[in-house]
Amino acid sequence: MKRFYLFFLILGLIFLQISELMAQEKISPQTQVCLSCHQVVTPGIVSDWKKSKHAKAVNNGKIIGCAECHTLDPEKHKDTFNHQGYKVHTVVTPLDCAKCHPKEAKEYSQNLMAYAHVNLVSNPIYKQLMEAVNGIYLLQEKGFKIEPPSQLSNQDSCFYCHGSKVEVKGFKTRNTVMGPMTFPEFTGWSNIGVGRLNPDDSKGSCSACHPRHSFSIEVARKPETCATCHKGKDVPAYKVYTVSRHGTTYASLKEKWNFGSKPWKLGEDYLTPTCAVCHISEVYVEGKVVAKRTHQMSDRLAHRLFGLIYATPHPKSPDTTIIKNKAGLPLPSELTGEPVKEFLIDEKEKLQRLNNMKAICLSCHSTSWVEEHFARLEEAIRTTNAMTLSATQLLLTAWQKGVANQSDGLFNEAIEKMWVETWLFYSNSVRFASAMAGVDNGVFEEGRWQLAMNLNKMYDWLKFLLTSAK
Amino acid sequence: MKRFYLFFLILGLIFLQISELMAQEKISPQTQVCLSCHQVVTPGIVSDWKKSKHAKAVNNGKIIGCAECHTLDPEKHKDTFNHQGYKVHTVVTPLDCAKCHPKEAKEYSQNLMAYAHVNLVSNPIYKQLMEAVNGIYLLQEKGFKIEPPSQLSNQDSCFYCHGSKVEVKGFKTRNTVMGPMTFPEFTGWSNIGVGRLNPDDSKGSCSACHPRHSFSIEVARKPETCATCHKGKDVPAYKVYTVSRHGTTYASLKEKWNFGSKPWKLGEDYLTPTCAVCHISEVYVEGKVVAKRTHQMSDRLAHRLFGLIYATPHPKSPDTTIIKNKAGLPLPSELTGEPVKEFLIDEKEKLQRLNNMKAICLSCHSTSWVEEHFARLEEAIRTTNAMTLSATQLLLTAWQKGVANQSDGLFNEAIEKMWVETWLFYSNSVRFASAMAGVDNGVFEEGRWQLAMNLNKMYDWLKFLLTSAK
Amino acid sequence: MKRFYLFFLILGLIFLQISELMAQEKISPQTQVCLSCHQVVTPGIVSDWKKSKHAKAVNNGKIIGCAECHTLDPEKHKDTFNHQGYKVHTVVTPLDCAKCHPKEAKEYSQNLMAYAHVNLVSNPIYKQLMEAVNGIYLLQEKGFKIEPPSQLSNQDSCFYCHGSKVEVKGFKTRNTVMGPMTFPEFTGWSNIGVGRLNPDDSKGSCSACHPRHSFSIEVARKPETCATCHKGKDVPAYKVYTVSRHGTTYASLKEKWNFGSKPWKLGEDYLTPTCAVCHISEVYVEGKVVAKRTHQMSDRLAHRLFGLIYATPHPKSPDTTIIKNKAGLPLPSELTGEPVKEFLIDEKEKLQRLNNMKAICLSCHSTSWVEEHFARLEEAIRTTNAMTLSATQLLLTAWQKGVANQSDGLFNEAIEKMWVETWLFYSNSVRFASAMAGVDNGVFEEGRWQLAMNLNKMYDWLKFLLTSAK
Repeated sequence: MKRFYLFFLILGLIFLQISELMAQEKISPQTQVCLSCHQVVTPGIVSDWKKSKHAKAVNNGKIIGCAECHTLDPEKHKDTFNHQGYKVHTVVTPLDCAKCHPKEAKEYSQNLMAYAHVNLVSNPIYKQLMEAVNGIYLLQEKGFKIEPPSQLSNQDSCFYCHGSKVEVKGFKTRNTVMGPMTFPEFTGWSNIGVGRLNPDDSKGSCSACHPRHSFSIEVARKPETCATCHKGKDVPAYKVYTVSRHGTTYASLKEKWNFGSKPWKLGEDYLTPTCAVCHISEVYVEGKVVAKRTHQMSDRLAHRLFGLIYATPHPKSPDTTIIKNKAGLPLPSELTGEPVKEFLIDEKEKLQRLNNMKAICLSCHSTSWVEEHFARLEEAIRTTNAMTLSATQLLLTAWQKGVANQSDGLFNEAIEKMWVETWLFYSNSVRFASAMAGVDNGVFEEGRWQLAMNLNKMYDWLKFLLTSAK
Repeated sequence: MKRFYLFFLILGLIFLQISELMAQEKISPQTQVCLSCHQVVTPGIVSDWKKSKHAKAVNNGKIIGCAECHTLDPEKHKDTFNHQGYKVHTVVTPLDCAKCHPKEAKEYSQNLMAYAHVNLVSNPIYKQLMEAVNGIYLLQEKGFKIEPPSQLSNQDSCFYCHGSKVEVKGFKTRNTVMGPMTFPEFTGWSNIGVGRLNPDDSKGSCSACHPRHSFSIEVARKPETCATCHKGKDVPAYKVYTVSRHGTTYASLKEKWNFGSKPWKLGEDYLTPTCAVCHISEVYVEGKVVAKRTHQMSDRLAHRLFGLIYATPHPKSPDTTIIKNKAGLPLPSELTGEPVKEFLIDEKEKLQRLNNMKAICLSCHSTSWVEEHFARLEEAIRTTNAMTLSATQLLLTAWQKGVANQSDGLFNEAIEKMWVETWLFYSNSVRFASAMAGVDNGVFEEGRWQLAMNLNKMYDWLKFLLTSAK
Repeated sequence: MKRFYLFFLILGLIFLQISELMAQEKISPQTQVCLSCHQVVTPGIVSDWKKSKHAKAVNNGKIIGCAECHTLDPEKHKDTFNHQGYKVHTVVTPLDCAKCHPKEAKEYSQNLMAYAHVNLVSNPIYKQLMEAVNGIYLLQEKGFKIEPPSQLSNQDSCFYCHGSKVEVKGFKTRNTVMGPMTFPEFTGWSNIGVGRLNPDDSKGSCSACHPRHSFSIEVARKPETCATCHKGKDVPAYKVYTVSRHGTTYASLKEKWNFGSKPWKLGEDYLTPTCAVCHISEVYVEGKVVAKRTHQMSDRLAHRLFGLIYATPHPKSPDTTIIKNKAGLPLPSELTGEPVKEFLIDEKEKLQRLNNMKAICLSCHSTSWVEEHFARLEEAIRTTNAMTLSATQLLLTAWQKGVANQSDGLFNEAIEKMWVETWLFYSNSVRFASAMAGVDNGVFEEGRWQLAMNLNKMYDWLKFLLTSAK
């Protein structure tokens, strides 16, 4: 009981502490109830929220607090539970955010990222890759038996960025400092992945780039935020950025820049682009809007540079599970590299998107500079695709000669994984380094050198396999 | 002689320059003597110190200057030498710091880090590993002869972080701008490693995290400081942090945070934890101490995640040289992975430590979020240990079949080193990525993919070795 | 036509906007003309320039604007074109900068960097390496046919940092918002590489470190700027710096430092060195100049640590194309490691350069600390050269036994590339880690471990090749 006294004493103090905001009568009564306890039980969240724009009067003097999001449309959320007399849901989703940010939510729903979970698990090839990465390799008489990964392992790996499927297992009563209370029990939670499947059947998590509960625009505009999922060998965008002139200038001067202004003025608020500038933000310079803000990032993306065996024009639909090549595989190109055109944007659309991007470049660079830059990117695509074809031919030979086994999975032998590294790591890196002019990352760091080295090694490895099979 | 005139002229100017501090008569006369020359001969050190809290009146108006530390207990320091009439020692040790910071020094002495040198050189297996890393490989008719590393090489490698054994070789007279002077001659100096063996027989170096001579608390609280020793493939904590949401938010917002305040208030002074927050600092939020400050970091560590073949519960004693497994090896687990329980903390202690850590997490995260986080970590430990077992089985086969040689060392052939990479690099990385939710670093960067790839390659490598041996 | 009206309306507004500067009558009439249009067509450049010192009155009240650089010596620049009545050239070169910065330009012209392009393409061995890195590997019946890289590929790889050869292909008329205009057409442009061959026959690009058009001294003094070209596995200086105590302290405290002051005072403006401090900047401490500013960085460099098979004393001349070893190869050492002394600095000069560097170290470190530091570096050079010799012996054996082919190129087979990684990646890294005391990067990250592992793998690989050849 003593604990409870102490608890209510603290509650009293808290009420005094937040009296300033309450005096303004802008915090809804529901949110006041939330705050009265959560300032004690999860104080970090509340402090974070207090720093947010939501905690200032944003909407006709209305403050967006806990209840405004966590009690929206309770019937739509499978994780809604009774909490101190309110119908609360844990997982705030893009549909909740859409109440005030409909344009952003709609654009995002057409973004490839919104499909990051679905495109992974519903594509048999990528699902197989995921299992080869996260499974447990048990040594057998001959080779390995791969025990499929647990959901916990997938959560702690691919789904962290691609998003999990958040499901309500049930509801459970737990003792708390407030006495027994009932909460939903989840699988796939915690998660802020971009393609998260939510308990209200929506896709995505705005928190991926706008971290809760301060939702700072500054954070979303800074490249480090993107590093959460775009730094690894498969998508080394952040690493490439840090060695580009854009990134090194950002690193040198960012303390003097203004990441919170609106409009966000190129030349005044910042000098070189961050990830957001080229891919999402409104680009505003000297009174002119050079590019409109878009949460459908493909608007400025002509090519699909990564994650695929061959780089291709960008897919038309963010749902790539519909794609089939001539061989019946769920891939946007044949194994020999030809793009499966019907699922990909055409030349006209490609040109439009290139021009959307070039308009941004041309704010600071001359036409001749920009044209050679993009000519290099096209050449990087051509050459890395050609290198990947050589690797594919080596793998096909290994399969044909019986020293590797295609039928038990495409990704569970050394030479198969060497083939994957050709495209998933090294061709990718070269293309990113070219596209973002962070060349140092695409030569000896993890790029052209490794791409060529890997081919040489695959060639010898095949030879060794053949020798051992004799 | 002209040089000396100039020198004394400069001395005069210096005296004027530091007159402000001296006027306050808070700098001890001894330190005034030090400063009068060292402001000229090592001005960078003096400037650094002037910025420190020590140079302000910290202790009843007393300033902690050069002499206060470098002339403490002269008889205890083997490097004490006569210097302008004073008994000075070069190497300031945790015992010196303990004069004013006894609690911190005592806690640190029970910290695993204080034993980093001893646990390395007095464990025959780790000593062998060190020699396989730093030795010179000379090509022979058959294999390599490994010339043992010089002490200079070890200093420039393992001991840089683990700490060196600082020994006084003798004393030597050298011409200086002040005329001939006598100084100690060392082996193992320069060094700021965490387990340094000092000339007063103490262990450790406070400078490792509190760099001399400003000893800024800000530096100790920032994660970059930890990167000095925790960024490499063997302990990639910093790299994992930089892709965690904690780390990316730190990177975005740190300029607005306050790293010098006391108490250091979560939500006010910072929003997401740095290394220090979770592992050392007092965690203070909304008037409540959620975790007490500790320099014995194991207080919050249930598991030993890295540096070992298998992850185990944390060792009971920071002195791990006492550990022996059933096979007589100085390891906390058998080669098959079973933990050697008598030397490791029990379930109750493990739970206590987990709860110490979870209390911090729960300041900002809900119970369900935190519970799944730690369930993932347990799963990461289970799966990486299972993968390591497969690698160990492959190595044992290689030894049994005579295509690798256990008796000449465990770490000096390619397949042996491949085995090491399984646990020292990739299993480690996966566990760190899980523990700190910096998942991007634990999948394709250097984690699950490399762990599986490495097993596949070891399997083939063994096959190639057997073929070549035919 | 409507578009033109709008355009001139905007022009009018721009004129008003820049009236403040113009009112001072310090902007030359020529530059006023440039600005009137370019504030609209490349507003980012203009905004950047406005932030520069050049845009303030630097030279007897004269402002250095567009025309002051882009119309200098029109007859010397092959890219000069008629532009709105002015003779303008696109590529501003070190000879242009030399008009106001003659000392810097002269020093730089003697810097190894100025020869980065020439030393690469005019050395048959390095040219071969470049082609093995950037070429396209086409799978043949036996091995690969390597299609030589296009100039676009080289531009997008080695030349990005080494500098391109910028050539004027011709002049082309293009429709612009101002009507049809004629511009030069280039090959090798865009580029800011340090050894760029310019259309006025000069070498280098000041923009490499002083990015256009703000040319901020702050940027040049910050290490991130150097990362543009010094982060990859071949020259991991920046990575090493970030784990050195110098680098971690910089990362922690840089927001409080002053990177714009002149003189730049150690202890006041900054506490630990950045790249510039040790290699270029004037080092000024407590009223004393410890090291003079130099754009000929070799003044402080005794050794050549990277990019070569063996580390050697620094070459005498920045033009290394003149070097030949006894075997007739364009290398500063024999294949067995002996330095080719006649082309390298002698012991006296080496000592002088070491002392130039040590003077900087001694500002903050004691003599014993500094002496052991450099003893370690000498040991790192000795041991890594010895390891490289073992790798070279393995490669020579492979060539002799016919399982690798020297005659078709030194860099196009797996075992040849493994040999390259010995020196270009791992020996390099160990030496950098030693030289800059960023040891964590030189042990398990990409250093001593990988160096030894690579030797073990090469040994086995050779065995496998021999087995397969049977």
